[in-house]
Amino acid sequence: MAVNLAAPDSATLHPVAGVELGSAEAGIRKRDRKDLLVVRIAPGASVAGVFTQNRFCAAPVVVCREHLAQATEIRALVINTGNANAGTGVTGLKDARATCSALARLLDCAPEQVLPFSTGVIMEPLPIDRLIAGLPHAVRRLASTHWLPAAEAIMTTDTRPKAASIRVTLDGVSTTVTGIAKGAGMIRPDMATMLAFIATDAAVALALLQQLTREVAERSFNRITVDGDTSTNDSFVAIATAEAGGEPIGSTRDARYVPLVEAIAAVAVQLAQSIVRDGEGATKFIEILVEQAGSEAEAKRVAYAIAHSPLVKTAFFASDPNLGRILAAVGNAGIADLDPGRVQLWLNNVHIASDGGRAPQYTEEDGQRAMKPSDIRVRVALGRGRAATTVWTCDLSHDYVTINAEYRS
Amino acid sequence: MAVNLAAPDSATLHPVAGVELGSAEAGIRKRDRKDLLVVRIAPGASVAGVFTQNRFCAAPVVVCREHLAQATEIRALVINTGNANAGTGVTGLKDARATCSALARLLDCAPEQVLPFSTGVIMEPLPIDRLIAGLPHAVRRLASTHWLPAAEAIMTTDTRPKAASIRVTLDGVSTTVTGIAKGAGMIRPDMATMLAFIATDAAVALALLQQLTREVAERSFNRITVDGDTSTNDSFVAIATAEAGGEPIGSTRDARYVPLVEAIAAVAVQLAQSIVRDGEGATKFIEILVEQAGSEAEAKRVAYAIAHSPLVKTAFFASDPNLGRILAAVGNAGIADLDPGRVQLWLNNVHIASDGGRAPQYTEEDGQRAMKPSDIRVRVALGRGRAATTVWTCDLSHDYVTINAEYRS
Repeated sequence: MAVNLAAPDSATLHPVAGVELGSAEAGIRKRDRKDLLVVRIAPGASVAGVFTQNRFCAAPVVVCREHLAQATEIRALVINTGNANAGTGVTGLKDARATCSALARLLDCAPEQVLPFSTGVIMEPLPIDRLIAGLPHAVRRLASTHWLPAAEAIMTTDTRPKAASIRVTLDGVSTTVTGIAKGAGMIRPDMATMLAFIATDAAVALALLQQLTREVAERSFNRITVDGDTSTNDSFVAIATAEAGGEPIGSTRDARYVPLVEAIAAVAVQLAQSIVRDGEGATKFIEILVEQAGSEAEAKRVAYAIAHSPLVKTAFFASDPNLGRILAAVGNAGIADLDPGRVQLWLNNVHIASDGGRAPQYTEEDGQRAMKPSDIRVRVALGRGRAATTVWTCDLSHDYVTINAEYRS
Repeated sequence: MAVNLAAPDSATLHPVAGVELGSAEAGIRKRDRKDLLVVRIAPGASVAGVFTQNRFCAAPVVVCREHLAQATEIRALVINTGNANAGTGVTGLKDARATCSALARLLDCAPEQVLPFSTGVIMEPLPIDRLIAGLPHAVRRLASTHWLPAAEAIMTTDTRPKAASIRVTLDGVSTTVTGIAKGAGMIRPDMATMLAFIATDAAVALALLQQLTREVAERSFNRITVDGDTSTNDSFVAIATAEAGGEPIGSTRDARYVPLVEAIAAVAVQLAQSIVRDGEGATKFIEILVEQAGSEAEAKRVAYAIAHSPLVKTAFFASDPNLGRILAAVGNAGIADLDPGRVQLWLNNVHIASDGGRAPQYTEEDGQRAMKPSDIRVRVALGRGRAATTVWTCDLSHDYVTINAEYRS
């Protein structure tokens, strides 16, 4: 059901020197299904992450934050699907730490140099024995060319693996950026049940990489929503291996900084949009642009009020130009002094509303035509200022209900 | 599909002296369907209302506010279904005023003494000629016993008419409270696409009735949610005809005030719960009690985070005890210093979670049993203070998507 989303071609996913990936079938929740991924990082890399804002954050998120704060050089990631290790209390923390220790022994590093990630069902004990038993198999398969199998290994309700890759030249040095991600429900800003890992062979000082990671997340993963739920496990990690050579980039004033951010952001936006295109049950991909807002926060509030409205989302599913629902969502965004008479609405190139009502030229046929495509752009002008933002979401279909009603069955 | 909700028995709906109701088939959107209701109020009544907080409020809401602010004695209500007269700009306001004028001519009062209400599709012009042509038919059928046909006339996607009635004795005077309401989607606090009209024959000073109406709304209609969307048209109006006799109640210190509020609130809560039980596609009625909160606002935030989570709602639809989703929703409620280790969760009488994980005695079988009934109570203790609140909602089913994807078809 993914919306205009092909599985990535392995040949287009450039290896990143200093990063190897290996997956295994550990039988964590189901048999005969890849559910374990190990990523080995060569010495000398910078690694930074941003994590869920959910207060019930999962045990692996707690351990990731601890290990990153200890500022030891991160040497490996370990990701399991099938079980989120969230809502698991003290045992969950012990299990996440045991996972790191077991992988550290195999890779000959310290447990604090391993970052753990889990995704799947909440509030069930992690089958730690099966997970640890699977690690040697994953390690045996480590290879720099295994980006596509890695993307497959972290899928849950995803229907397509998600990966993206580009090459840029920074100050004469060819530099690679490659990443993978998984969705596909519980997606909303401030990180959702999504995991994303992006690596580059550029050299970036750790403090700057942390800033870059937050900046990229704000432009990509924090601009998507499927169902308005923020997961307990969301994580986005960026790795800069420094293997491409050159002096490390240490400041935003370095001429290489902006092109590198743009390259990483391009991969991140592609991954983020892939998550929405493969949103649970999605049949339409919807870009929501809110402009002429008084502030960016205001623009985001309006964009998410539209993106989270079940009535708007079901109307898109039905291709029904019941477009007053979008105006109602704008009116619900909590802007006390909004003047409805100044709000304008377009769908693709069709002018839908102005002066608090239908646009003069609008016809029902125009609306029906605008609702037809599987990629749709909603543009709202608030008539209040110059701030703008863009958010990506999908429709709400029967399959969303089916998938989420039967997820554990 | 309504959850444990029978259609009201006309014999249990006591007439309120001074209130007559009459309905008609005006063909506003569909033929052969009651879609117009007139309520005539005898001279000497107090009338108060609370309205949607949506900034794109409908034209009739604007006109209601104007007419109530002019403090003329309200003598009639006119309600149409099939068209919301919202997002209709200047023409919509003109149409709402024309409706009032037409009814005022028939009932021999001033246009400012009529309150208009509309519900239905947004952003389509009101078929004002058909509406006005229907008014004489509705007026001809005015009768004090027509509460049930009136409840039927205001239905949209409702599957059952909603009405409730009780009698209480206030200082020796037998007093009646009878009300009707309609849902059934776009329901959330701060008023949803819901209309509710409650009348009593008690005598209440206008200023006090306004306060009473807000207090009752806060305890009933502002405690329900179906899909988190606030409509453009929501209205709750209370009418006190004074026909039962006795001195008007003018102050909250009057001994009759509290029993009267309780009686009106009892009718309002029953109507509010009926709206949720008949929520679009609902198969389960869910009461969410949040206690041990630091403040009532905090308790409401947590209750609505649970009630609005599509993942929680689909799990209830599936009767799947995927109860970590409730913890994740609690973690998403935006309480920055929430300590997950102090949160406890019960479903009916089953203790689900404590100490940040599963409760020690909890078994999957207990969870499955707790998810079975069609009436379910979720209780969350936050371990932060003494404030509490209760919110009512329903599950998210296939039929919700079907109804909202096909609403206009």
